[in-house]
Amino acid sequence: MTEARNDGAESDRRRSRRVDRADHVRADPEALSALMGDRALLLRMDCCDPWVSEDGRLDWGTLDDAPAGAELVFLGLDGDRGCFAAVPRMLEGGDARGKAWLQAGQLSQQDFATFSAARSLASWHASHRFCARCGSMTVQGKGGWQRDCTDDACATSHFPRTDPVVIMTIEHVTPDGERLVLLGRGLGWPEGRYSALAGFVEPGETIEQAVQRETLEEAGLKVHSVRYRSSQAWPFPSQLMIGCHAMTDHSTLAVDRTELDDAFWATRAELFAALEDLPGKTFLPPPRHAIANSLLRDWLDRPAG
Amino acid sequence: MTEARNDGAESDRRRSRRVDRADHVRADPEALSALMGDRALLLRMDCCDPWVSEDGRLDWGTLDDAPAGAELVFLGLDGDRGCFAAVPRMLEGGDARGKAWLQAGQLSQQDFATFSAARSLASWHASHRFCARCGSMTVQGKGGWQRDCTDDACATSHFPRTDPVVIMTIEHVTPDGERLVLLGRGLGWPEGRYSALAGFVEPGETIEQAVQRETLEEAGLKVHSVRYRSSQAWPFPSQLMIGCHAMTDHSTLAVDRTELDDAFWATRAELFAALEDLPGKTFLPPPRHAIANSLLRDWLDRPAG
Ligand SMILES: [Zn+2]
Ligand SMILES: [Zn+2]
Repeated sequence: MTEARNDGAESDRRRSRRVDRADHVRADPEALSALMGDRALLLRMDCCDPWVSEDGRLDWGTLDDAPAGAELVFLGLDGDRGCFAAVPRMLEGGDARGKAWLQAGQLSQQDFATFSAARSLASWHASHRFCARCGSMTVQGKGGWQRDCTDDACATSHFPRTDPVVIMTIEHVTPDGERLVLLGRGLGWPEGRYSALAGFVEPGETIEQAVQRETLEEAGLKVHSVRYRSSQAWPFPSQLMIGCHAMTDHSTLAVDRTELDDAFWATRAELFAALEDLPGKTFLPPPRHAIANSLLRDWLDRPAG
Repeated sequence: MTEARNDGAESDRRRSRRVDRADHVRADPEALSALMGDRALLLRMDCCDPWVSEDGRLDWGTLDDAPAGAELVFLGLDGDRGCFAAVPRMLEGGDARGKAWLQAGQLSQQDFATFSAARSLASWHASHRFCARCGSMTVQGKGGWQRDCTDDACATSHFPRTDPVVIMTIEHVTPDGERLVLLGRGLGWPEGRYSALAGFVEPGETIEQAVQRETLEEAGLKVHSVRYRSSQAWPFPSQLMIGCHAMTDHSTLAVDRTELDDAFWATRAELFAALEDLPGKTFLPPPRHAIANSLLRDWLDRPAG
């Protein structure tokens, strides 16, 4: 009997939940506090990092598991149950994407979305306890989807940050028709690891302009025919990865060594060997759950252009 | 002679400049100060709003035109000349997008990019004089592309903010094959104005998920087949507009009146009349320089789906 109850509790703790953001609840303090009862779920975290079990599941407790006095962020609804995350008082060691970065790769798509929202929000709250406009303290508002300045004269509301990043496969077709893709490695990356080039979209730019500027800056290449491919949330700490493809008529690289450790043109065979972990592989590809991996697979699957 | 000189100075002041962001200069204090000489150009602004002349040009002065002690942001290079903007000490009346919002519509694409970068950066600096992490003062770094906390123990670097927003044409095809597009109007918009639905991408979401969530929240519609179309910088104060298209099998609207004043399904003929300002038009379309306008034109030009 006790064992059966424990099993039930255990399966309630670790299971994939479709968390509906239910944004109408955020601005409704009564609805919010009604959801904070015994049936409320708390995403268990270590600072900003949600726990991921060895079999790739998130771990849910109750609000009793939250540190005393911790701010709670409303992640959304699982059916009629409120899902929350507790905000750490401060960031420990910044946003080093250590263990959690690898563990996130085991999660289902649904859980990865919850992991991402929770991690980005917790990190944002912990690093925005003060008003950037006037320096006063801020307090959480709207279930954790904003922070409000406590100075009456300022009273600025601040919102979670999401930084758009372009990441792109750059293709060159040689005079004899061979298709090549540009791969680069960042400073300090693990030995042998290469990936698609990427960079933040700057104020005043379109996605397409950011792809052109970043490729020119990092590799010295002018590109054209920029196409959008797919996107992904990347909560280390809070990027929106915007996957693109572009063509270049040039093959001579001028690598900016302050940005990249190295870059090279990979053949389709080299890329295939790396992605499939074949014996002859010459480099390590980006991890499976990173958009770079799916962009590169997508490139292999498509015709030229 | 004097007149000719004035004409030359005048044409140097108001002309379209291709401003290369030259990001390598930002981290090079010597190069930066060498660019701050007599030949440097200052984008003339009223608080965060670049001046736009009646014939749709930006107005450039010299660094002598900057208020004493103002922080200068390096916008980039026009040939070998440094282009700068002066940061206002504080925001006057927030980020109300008044005159400048309309004036920006007269600018060339090249000048709109400069206008956008300058306006977004100036607004960001003026509202980020303090460290959100610890409340200490911040100072400008890297030519105005970052701000650094002055507290030695914190020493956090902060970067300009760009908020991704999805904006989308939602299409429904009636049982008898008529193609309709969803239009909505925000609270407090000018009378008769309708546009495409839009909303901020939240932490943990993809672009496609944001389109689905926003359309469900604002209009009560489930959508599918989300496709990216185009993007635009929108510096009021600092959005990256991500234009998309999606289909819905449903036509019954459930408008969230806390988000939208109204929404309706427009026929192709109604949209055409509004965009072309024909006598029979039933609503005012979004202004020409907004991505909503080009998304709607694009929708008219494309086959269904
Ligand atoms: Zn404040
Ligand atoms: Zn600080």
